[in-house]
Amino acid sequence: MNNTDVLIALEAIRQLKARYLRFVDTKQWDGFQALFCDDATMDISDDVPDLILTGSQVIRDAVSHSLAECLSVHQGFMPELDILSPTEARGLWAMQDKLQWTRDCGNGIRDLDGWGHYHETYRKVGDEWRIQTLKLTRLRLDAVRW
Amino acid sequence: MNNTDVLIALEAIRQLKARYLRFVDTKQWDGFQALFCDDATMDISDDVPDLILTGSQVIRDAVSHSLAECLSVHQGFMPELDILSPTEARGLWAMQDKLQWTRDCGNGIRDLDGWGHYHETYRKVGDEWRIQTLKLTRLRLDAVRW
Amino acid sequence: MNNTDVLIALEAIRQLKARYLRFVDTKQWDGFQALFCDDATMDISDDVPDLILTGSQVIRDAVSHSLAECLSVHQGFMPELDILSPTEARGLWAMQDKLQWTRDCGNGIRDLDGWGHYHETYRKVGDEWRIQTLKLTRLRLDAVRW
Repeated sequence: MNNTDVLIALEAIRQLKARYLRFVDTKQWDGFQALFCDDATMDISDDVPDLILTGSQVIRDAVSHSLAECLSVHQGFMPELDILSPTEARGLWAMQDKLQWTRDCGNGIRDLDGWGHYHETYRKVGDEWRIQTLKLTRLRLDAVRW
Repeated sequence: MNNTDVLIALEAIRQLKARYLRFVDTKQWDGFQALFCDDATMDISDDVPDLILTGSQVIRDAVSHSLAECLSVHQGFMPELDILSPTEARGLWAMQDKLQWTRDCGNGIRDLDGWGHYHETYRKVGDEWRIQTLKLTRLRLDAVRW
Repeated sequence: MNNTDVLIALEAIRQLKARYLRFVDTKQWDGFQALFCDDATMDISDDVPDLILTGSQVIRDAVSHSLAECLSVHQGFMPELDILSPTEARGLWAMQDKLQWTRDCGNGIRDLDGWGHYHETYRKVGDEWRIQTLKLTRLRLDAVRW
Protein backbone atom coordinates (compact mmCIF):
# COMPACT_ATOMS: atom_id res chain seq x y z
CA MET A 1 0.00 0.00 0.00
CA ASN A 2 1.29 3.45 -0.77
CA ASN A 3 1.09 6.29 1.75
CA THR A 4 -2.18 7.64 0.38
CA ASP A 5 -3.83 4.23 0.61
CA VAL A 6 -2.70 3.96 4.23
CA LEU A 7 -4.07 7.43 5.04
CA ILE A 8 -7.44 6.58 3.45
CA ALA A 9 -7.61 3.37 5.50
CA LEU A 10 -6.79 5.29 8.70
CA GLU A 11 -9.64 7.71 8.02
CA ALA A 12 -12.05 4.86 7.30
CA ILE A 13 -11.21 3.21 10.63
CA ARG A 14 -11.57 6.48 12.53
CA GLN A 15 -15.04 6.87 11.02
CA LEU A 16 -15.86 3.23 11.85
CA LYS A 17 -15.10 3.89 15.51
CA ALA A 18 -17.01 7.19 15.43
CA ARG A 19 -20.10 5.37 14.20
CA TYR A 20 -19.62 2.67 16.84
CA LEU A 21 -19.72 5.28 19.62
CA ARG A 22 -22.59 7.25 18.09
CA PHE A 23 -24.72 4.19 17.35
CA VAL A 24 -24.31 2.94 20.94
CA ASP A 25 -25.41 6.25 22.45
CA THR A 26 -28.29 6.79 20.02
CA LYS A 27 -29.31 3.12 20.28
CA GLN A 28 -29.16 2.40 16.54
CA TRP A 29 -28.67 -1.33 16.95
CA ASP A 30 -28.96 -2.44 13.32
CA GLY A 31 -26.24 0.03 12.37
CA PHE A 32 -24.22 -0.99 15.42
CA GLN A 33 -24.27 -4.70 14.56
CA ALA A 34 -23.22 -4.00 10.96
CA LEU A 35 -19.94 -2.45 12.18
CA PHE A 36 -18.69 -5.84 13.35
CA CYS A 37 -17.41 -8.87 11.47
CA ASP A 38 -19.89 -11.72 11.82
CA ASP A 39 -17.42 -13.63 14.02
CA ALA A 40 -16.28 -10.60 16.02
CA THR A 41 -15.44 -10.82 19.71
CA MET A 42 -15.93 -8.24 22.46
CA ASP A 43 -13.95 -8.79 25.64
CA ILE A 44 -15.29 -6.75 28.54
CA SER A 45 -13.86 -9.02 31.20
CA ASP A 46 -12.17 -6.05 32.85
CA ASP A 47 -15.69 -4.81 33.76
CA VAL A 48 -17.46 -8.14 34.25
CA PRO A 49 -15.26 -11.16 35.04
CA ASP A 50 -15.01 -13.66 32.17
CA LEU A 51 -17.41 -11.74 29.94
CA ILE A 52 -16.33 -12.28 26.35
CA LEU A 53 -19.04 -12.01 23.70
CA THR A 54 -18.64 -13.86 20.39
CA GLY A 55 -20.50 -13.03 17.18
CA SER A 56 -21.98 -9.73 16.01
CA GLN A 57 -25.54 -10.84 16.86
CA VAL A 58 -24.55 -11.83 20.41
CA ILE A 59 -22.64 -8.54 20.85
CA ARG A 60 -25.64 -6.53 19.64
CA ASP A 61 -28.06 -8.41 21.90
CA ALA A 62 -25.88 -8.08 24.99
CA VAL A 63 -24.97 -4.41 24.54
CA SER A 64 -28.47 -3.30 23.57
CA HIS A 65 -29.95 -5.22 26.51
CA SER A 66 -27.48 -3.80 29.03
CA LEU A 67 -28.17 -0.23 27.87
CA ALA A 68 -31.94 -0.58 27.39
CA GLU A 69 -32.73 1.51 30.45
CA CYS A 70 -29.54 3.51 30.48
CA LEU A 71 -28.67 6.99 29.22
CA SER A 72 -25.16 6.46 27.86
CA VAL A 73 -22.34 8.65 26.60
CA HIS A 74 -19.28 6.91 25.13
CA GLN A 75 -16.26 8.94 24.05
CA GLY A 76 -13.14 7.91 22.10
CA PHE A 77 -9.87 9.79 21.85
CA MET A 78 -6.34 9.64 20.48
CA PRO A 79 -6.28 6.64 18.13
CA GLU A 80 -3.05 4.75 17.62
CA LEU A 81 -3.74 2.79 14.43
CA ASP A 82 -1.58 0.42 12.40
CA ILE A 83 -2.58 -0.70 8.93
CA LEU A 84 -1.07 -4.19 8.74
CA SER A 85 -2.20 -5.11 5.23
CA PRO A 86 -4.87 -3.96 2.75
CA THR A 87 -7.46 -5.91 4.81
CA GLU A 88 -6.05 -6.01 8.36
CA ALA A 89 -5.43 -3.34 10.96
CA ARG A 90 -5.20 -2.85 14.69
CA GLY A 91 -5.90 0.07 16.94
CA LEU A 92 -5.80 1.45 20.43
CA TRP A 93 -8.13 4.22 21.62
CA ALA A 94 -8.42 6.06 24.89
CA MET A 95 -12.06 6.05 26.05
CA GLN A 96 -14.47 7.37 28.62
CA ASP A 97 -18.02 6.32 29.28
CA LYS A 98 -20.71 7.88 31.44
CA LEU A 99 -23.76 5.77 32.14
CA GLN A 100 -26.91 6.69 34.03
CA TRP A 101 -29.64 4.12 34.60
CA THR A 102 -33.23 5.25 34.74
CA ARG A 103 -34.16 2.60 37.32
CA ASP A 104 -32.40 0.00 39.44
CA CYS A 105 -31.70 -2.84 37.02
CA GLY A 106 -30.65 -5.26 39.73
CA ASN A 107 -26.97 -4.45 40.20
CA GLY A 108 -27.66 -1.49 42.47
CA ILE A 109 -25.76 0.98 40.30
CA ARG A 110 -27.27 4.30 39.26
CA ASP A 111 -24.27 6.05 37.69
CA LEU A 112 -21.09 4.59 36.27
CA ASP A 113 -18.20 6.76 35.06
CA GLY A 114 -15.34 4.88 33.44
CA TRP A 115 -12.01 5.60 31.77
CA GLY A 116 -9.78 3.20 29.88
CA HIS A 117 -8.65 1.96 26.50
CA TYR A 118 -10.16 0.01 23.63
CA HIS A 119 -7.72 -2.50 22.11
CA GLU A 120 -9.05 -3.50 18.71
CA THR A 121 -8.38 -5.32 15.47
CA TYR A 122 -10.13 -4.61 12.20
CA ARG A 123 -10.75 -6.49 8.98
CA LYS A 124 -11.83 -5.15 5.63
CA VAL A 125 -14.90 -7.00 4.34
CA GLY A 126 -15.61 -6.02 0.75
CA ASP A 127 -15.26 -2.22 0.71
CA GLU A 128 -15.84 -1.74 4.44
CA TRP A 129 -13.61 -1.89 7.47
CA ARG A 130 -15.24 -3.68 10.39
CA ILE A 131 -14.34 -4.45 13.99
CA GLN A 132 -12.90 -7.96 14.37
CA THR A 133 -11.98 -7.91 18.06
CA LEU A 134 -12.52 -5.37 20.83
CA LYS A 135 -11.09 -5.57 24.33
CA LEU A 136 -11.77 -2.92 26.95
CA THR A 137 -9.26 -2.25 29.73
CA ARG A 138 -9.92 0.17 32.55
CA LEU A 139 -7.85 2.87 34.22
CA ARG A 140 -10.63 3.90 36.58
CA LEU A 141 -14.28 3.12 37.27
CA ASP A 142 -16.44 5.22 39.60
CA ALA A 143 -19.87 3.96 40.61
CA VAL A 144 -22.71 5.74 42.40
CA ARG A 145 -25.30 3.43 43.92
CA TRP A 146 -29.03 4.02 44.23
CA MET B 1 -10.95 15.42 -6.26
CA ASN B 2 -8.23 12.82 -5.81
CA ASN B 3 -7.64 11.06 -2.50
CA THR B 4 -4.93 13.47 -1.39
CA ASP B 5 -7.16 16.48 -2.04
CA VAL B 6 -9.90 14.85 0.05
CA LEU B 7 -7.48 14.14 2.91
CA ILE B 8 -6.23 17.75 2.88
CA ALA B 9 -9.83 19.02 3.01
CA LEU B 10 -10.61 16.68 5.93
CA GLU B 11 -7.64 18.05 7.86
CA ALA B 12 -8.65 21.65 7.11
CA ILE B 13 -12.17 21.01 8.46
CA ARG B 14 -10.82 19.30 11.59
CA GLN B 15 -8.68 22.38 12.25
CA LEU B 16 -11.66 24.67 11.57
CA LYS B 17 -13.65 22.89 14.27
CA ALA B 18 -10.65 22.92 16.62
CA ARG B 19 -10.42 26.70 16.28
CA TYR B 20 -14.18 27.03 16.79
CA LEU B 21 -13.95 25.23 20.16
CA ARG B 22 -10.77 27.03 21.23
CA PHE B 23 -12.02 30.49 20.25
CA VAL B 24 -15.26 29.96 22.19
CA ASP B 25 -13.46 28.95 25.36
CA THR B 26 -10.79 31.66 25.12
CA LYS B 27 -13.39 34.26 24.08
CA GLN B 28 -11.64 35.31 20.86
CA TRP B 29 -14.79 36.61 19.21
CA ASP B 30 -13.28 38.20 16.09
CA GLY B 31 -11.60 34.91 15.25
CA PHE B 32 -14.78 33.02 16.15
CA GLN B 33 -16.96 35.04 13.79
CA ALA B 34 -14.50 34.62 10.92
CA LEU B 35 -14.98 30.82 11.05
CA PHE B 36 -18.55 31.15 9.77
CA CYS B 37 -19.96 31.96 6.36
CA ASP B 38 -21.64 35.37 6.43
CA ASP B 39 -25.06 33.74 6.06
CA ALA B 40 -24.35 30.84 8.45
CA THR B 41 -27.04 29.44 10.74
CA MET B 42 -26.68 28.00 14.24
CA ASP B 43 -29.59 25.90 15.47
CA ILE B 44 -29.53 25.41 19.23
CA SER B 45 -33.24 24.72 19.51
CA ASP B 46 -32.53 21.49 21.36
CA ASP B 47 -31.22 23.66 24.26
CA VAL B 48 -33.52 26.69 23.91
CA PRO B 49 -36.83 26.11 22.07
CA ASP B 50 -36.97 27.74 18.61
CA LEU B 51 -33.52 29.33 18.94
CA ILE B 52 -31.98 29.47 15.47
CA LEU B 53 -29.41 32.19 14.86
CA THR B 54 -28.85 33.47 11.32
CA GLY B 55 -25.76 35.37 10.15
CA SER B 56 -22.21 35.26 11.49
CA GLN B 57 -22.60 38.62 13.26
CA VAL B 58 -25.79 37.48 15.02
CA ILE B 59 -24.13 34.17 15.99
CA ARG B 60 -21.11 35.99 17.40
CA ASP B 61 -23.24 38.47 19.36
CA ALA B 62 -25.51 35.79 20.83
CA VAL B 63 -22.75 33.32 21.79
CA SER B 64 -20.40 35.97 23.19
CA HIS B 65 -23.25 37.51 25.20
CA SER B 66 -24.42 34.18 26.62
CA LEU B 67 -20.88 33.27 27.73
CA ALA B 68 -19.83 36.73 28.95
CA GLU B 69 -19.97 35.73 32.61
CA CYS B 70 -19.36 32.03 32.08
CA LEU B 71 -16.24 29.88 32.34
CA SER B 72 -16.73 27.46 29.44
CA VAL B 73 -15.08 24.28 28.21
CA HIS B 74 -16.27 22.86 24.86
CA GLN B 75 -14.90 19.55 23.59
CA GLY B 76 -15.29 17.84 20.21
CA PHE B 77 -14.61 14.20 19.37
CA MET B 78 -14.82 11.60 16.63
CA PRO B 79 -15.59 13.53 13.44
CA GLU B 80 -17.54 11.84 10.66
CA LEU B 81 -16.82 14.07 7.68
CA ASP B 82 -17.89 13.84 4.04
CA ILE B 83 -16.30 15.99 1.37
CA LEU B 84 -19.15 16.45 -1.10
CA SER B 85 -17.35 18.63 -3.67
CA PRO B 86 -14.26 20.88 -3.76
CA THR B 87 -16.30 23.55 -1.92
CA GLU B 88 -18.94 21.64 0.07
CA ALA B 89 -18.74 19.25 2.99
CA ARG B 90 -20.77 17.99 5.91
CA GLY B 91 -19.80 16.67 9.30
CA LEU B 92 -20.98 15.16 12.53
CA TRP B 93 -19.06 15.52 15.80
CA ALA B 94 -19.63 14.15 19.27
CA MET B 95 -19.39 16.99 21.80
CA GLN B 96 -19.36 17.82 25.48
CA ASP B 97 -19.61 21.18 27.14
CA LYS B 98 -19.08 22.22 30.74
CA LEU B 99 -20.26 25.68 31.71
CA GLN B 100 -19.91 27.49 35.02
CA TRP B 101 -21.43 30.92 35.52
CA THR B 102 -19.71 33.37 37.80
CA ARG B 103 -23.03 34.88 38.93
CA ASP B 104 -26.75 34.21 38.51
CA CYS B 105 -27.53 35.54 35.03
CA GLY B 106 -31.25 35.22 35.49
CA ASN B 107 -31.95 31.62 34.51
CA GLY B 108 -31.01 30.28 37.92
CA ILE B 109 -28.33 27.94 36.54
CA ARG B 110 -24.83 27.81 38.01
CA ASP B 111 -23.36 24.76 36.24
CA LEU B 112 -24.40 23.10 33.03
CA ASP B 113 -22.82 19.86 31.78
CA GLY B 114 -23.96 18.71 28.37
CA TRP B 115 -23.29 15.90 25.90
CA GLY B 116 -24.49 15.61 22.32
CA HIS B 117 -23.60 16.00 18.67
CA TYR B 118 -22.86 18.84 16.30
CA HIS B 119 -24.42 18.33 12.84
CA GLU B 120 -22.69 20.70 10.43
CA THR B 121 -22.21 21.71 6.85
CA TYR B 122 -19.19 23.57 5.52
CA ARG B 123 -18.43 25.71 2.49
CA LYS B 124 -15.07 26.70 1.07
CA VAL B 125 -14.85 30.48 0.67
CA GLY B 126 -11.71 31.38 -1.25
CA ASP B 127 -8.97 29.25 0.33
CA GLU B 128 -10.76 28.70 3.63
CA TRP B 129 -13.33 26.21 4.82
CA ARG B 130 -16.04 27.83 6.94
CA ILE B 131 -19.08 26.65 8.88
CA GLN B 132 -22.28 27.07 6.86
CA THR B 133 -24.78 25.45 9.25
CA LEU B 134 -24.47 24.07 12.77
CA LYS B 135 -27.17 22.19 14.64
CA LEU B 136 -26.65 20.90 18.18
CA THR B 137 -28.55 17.86 19.43
CA ARG B 138 -28.33 16.60 22.99
CA LEU B 139 -27.93 13.18 24.54
CA ARG B 140 -27.89 14.51 28.10
CA LEU B 141 -27.91 17.82 29.94
CA ASP B 142 -27.25 18.13 33.68
CA ALA B 143 -27.89 21.42 35.42
CA VAL B 144 -26.92 22.57 38.93
CA ARG B 145 -28.88 25.58 40.21
CA TRP B 146 -27.68 28.37 42.43
CA MET C 1 7.25 18.52 1.31
CA ASN C 2 4.34 17.40 -0.83
CA ASN C 3 0.84 17.05 0.57
CA THR C 4 1.19 13.34 1.28
CA ASP C 5 4.42 13.90 3.23
CA VAL C 6 2.65 16.54 5.31
CA LEU C 7 -0.28 14.21 6.00
CA ILE C 8 2.06 11.40 7.08
CA ALA C 9 3.88 13.79 9.44
CA LEU C 10 0.55 14.95 10.93
CA GLU C 11 -0.43 11.34 11.64
CA ALA C 12 2.96 10.62 13.22
CA ILE C 13 2.60 13.60 15.56
CA ARG C 14 -0.96 12.63 16.50
CA GLN C 15 0.34 9.17 17.43
CA LEU C 16 3.24 10.71 19.36
CA LYS C 17 0.78 12.67 21.50
CA ALA C 18 -1.46 9.61 21.90
CA ARG C 19 1.48 7.65 23.29
CA TYR C 20 2.39 10.54 25.57
CA LEU C 21 -1.06 10.49 27.16
CA ARG C 22 -1.26 6.70 27.34
CA PHE C 23 2.23 6.27 28.79
CA VAL C 24 1.52 8.85 31.52
CA ASP C 25 -1.69 7.13 32.60
CA THR C 26 -0.25 3.61 32.44
CA LYS C 27 3.00 4.76 34.07
CA GLN C 28 5.31 3.49 31.31
CA TRP C 29 8.13 5.85 32.14
CA ASP C 30 10.82 4.49 29.82
CA GLY C 31 8.47 4.86 26.88
CA PHE C 32 7.38 8.28 28.15
CA GLN C 33 10.92 9.63 28.33
CA ALA C 34 11.73 8.40 24.82
CA LEU C 35 8.98 10.64 23.38
CA PHE C 36 10.97 13.76 24.23
CA CYS C 37 14.06 15.31 22.67
CA ASP C 38 16.97 15.04 25.08
CA ASP C 39 16.91 18.82 25.64
CA ALA C 40 13.11 19.12 25.77
CA THR C 41 11.36 21.56 28.08
CA MET C 42 8.03 21.19 29.90
CA ASP C 43 6.49 24.41 31.19
CA ILE C 44 3.79 23.77 33.77
CA SER C 45 4.09 27.18 35.37
CA ASP C 46 0.37 27.75 34.93
CA ASP C 47 -0.17 24.97 37.52
CA VAL C 48 2.89 25.51 39.74
CA PRO C 49 4.50 28.99 39.62
CA ASP C 50 7.87 29.07 37.84
CA LEU C 51 7.91 25.31 37.22
CA ILE C 52 9.75 24.70 33.96
CA LEU C 53 11.48 21.33 33.58
CA THR C 54 14.47 20.99 31.25
CA GLY C 55 15.75 17.72 29.80
CA SER C 56 13.90 14.47 29.13
CA GLN C 57 15.40 12.77 32.21
CA VAL C 58 14.32 15.64 34.48
CA ILE C 59 10.84 15.64 32.91
CA ARG C 60 10.51 11.89 33.43
CA ASP C 61 11.67 12.06 37.03
CA ALA C 62 9.38 14.96 37.94
CA VAL C 63 6.24 13.62 36.25
CA SER C 64 6.68 10.04 37.45
CA HIS C 65 7.33 11.26 41.00
CA SER C 66 4.30 13.56 41.06
CA LEU C 67 2.02 10.78 39.83
CA ALA C 68 3.53 7.93 41.86
CA GLU C 69 0.56 7.74 44.23
CA CYS C 70 -2.01 9.15 41.81
CA LEU C 71 -4.59 7.50 39.56
CA SER C 72 -4.44 9.72 36.48
CA VAL C 73 -6.45 10.16 33.31
CA HIS C 74 -5.12 12.58 30.68
CA GLN C 75 -7.13 13.32 27.55
CA GLY C 76 -6.19 15.23 24.40
CA PHE C 77 -8.54 16.61 21.76
CA MET C 78 -8.71 18.64 18.56
CA PRO C 79 -5.10 19.07 17.42
CA GLU C 80 -4.12 22.13 15.44
CA LEU C 81 -0.81 21.09 13.90
CA ASP C 82 1.56 22.90 11.55
CA ILE C 83 4.39 21.10 9.80
CA LEU C 84 7.03 23.83 9.48
CA SER C 85 9.73 21.80 7.73
CA PRO C 86 10.62 18.12 7.26
CA THR C 87 11.99 18.14 10.84
CA GLU C 88 10.07 20.87 12.67
CA ALA C 89 6.43 21.22 13.66
CA ARG C 90 4.25 22.90 16.22
CA GLY C 91 0.90 21.99 17.72
CA LEU C 92 -1.91 23.03 19.99
CA TRP C 93 -4.18 20.51 21.73
CA ALA C 94 -7.18 20.91 23.97
CA MET C 95 -6.73 18.77 27.08
CA GLN C 96 -8.40 17.53 30.24
CA ASP C 97 -6.88 15.72 33.17
CA LYS C 98 -8.49 13.99 36.11
CA LEU C 99 -6.22 13.09 39.00
CA GLN C 100 -7.02 11.19 42.18
CA TRP C 101 -4.39 10.69 44.86
CA THR C 102 -4.46 7.55 46.93
CA ARG C 103 -3.17 9.37 50.02
CA ASP C 104 -2.41 12.92 51.11
CA CYS C 105 0.93 13.69 49.48
CA GLY C 106 1.41 16.91 51.39
CA ASN C 107 -0.45 19.46 49.29
CA GLY C 108 -3.81 18.56 50.80
CA ILE C 109 -5.40 17.75 47.44
CA ARG C 110 -7.34 14.53 46.86
CA ASP C 111 -8.88 15.17 43.43
CA LEU C 112 -7.84 17.57 40.72
CA ASP C 113 -9.88 18.08 37.54
CA GLY C 114 -8.31 20.37 34.96
CA TRP C 115 -9.03 21.70 31.49
CA GLY C 116 -6.72 23.63 29.20
CA HIS C 117 -4.39 23.49 26.22
CA TYR C 118 -1.02 21.99 25.41
CA HIS C 119 1.15 24.31 23.30
CA GLU C 120 3.94 22.23 21.78
CA THR C 121 6.78 22.10 19.32
CA TYR C 122 8.18 18.94 17.78
CA ARG C 123 11.43 17.91 16.13
CA LYS C 124 12.15 14.89 13.99
CA VAL C 125 15.13 12.96 15.35
CA GLY C 126 16.15 10.27 12.83
CA ASP C 127 12.85 8.66 11.78
CA GLU C 128 10.89 9.72 14.85
CA TRP C 129 9.01 12.85 15.78
CA ARG C 130 9.59 13.88 19.38
CA ILE C 131 8.34 16.60 21.71
CA GLN C 132 10.75 19.55 21.86
CA THR C 133 8.74 21.92 24.05
CA LEU C 134 5.46 21.57 25.93
CA LYS C 135 3.62 24.35 27.73
CA LEU C 136 0.34 23.78 29.55
CA THR C 137 -2.17 26.60 29.95
CA ARG C 138 -5.37 26.24 31.95
CA LEU C 139 -8.96 27.24 31.34
CA ARG C 140 -10.19 25.79 34.62
CA LEU C 141 -8.88 23.79 37.56
CA ASP C 142 -11.15 22.26 40.22
CA ALA C 143 -9.63 20.81 43.38
CA VAL C 144 -11.22 18.67 46.09
CA ARG C 145 -9.27 18.58 49.35
CA TRP C 146 -8.91 15.71 51.79
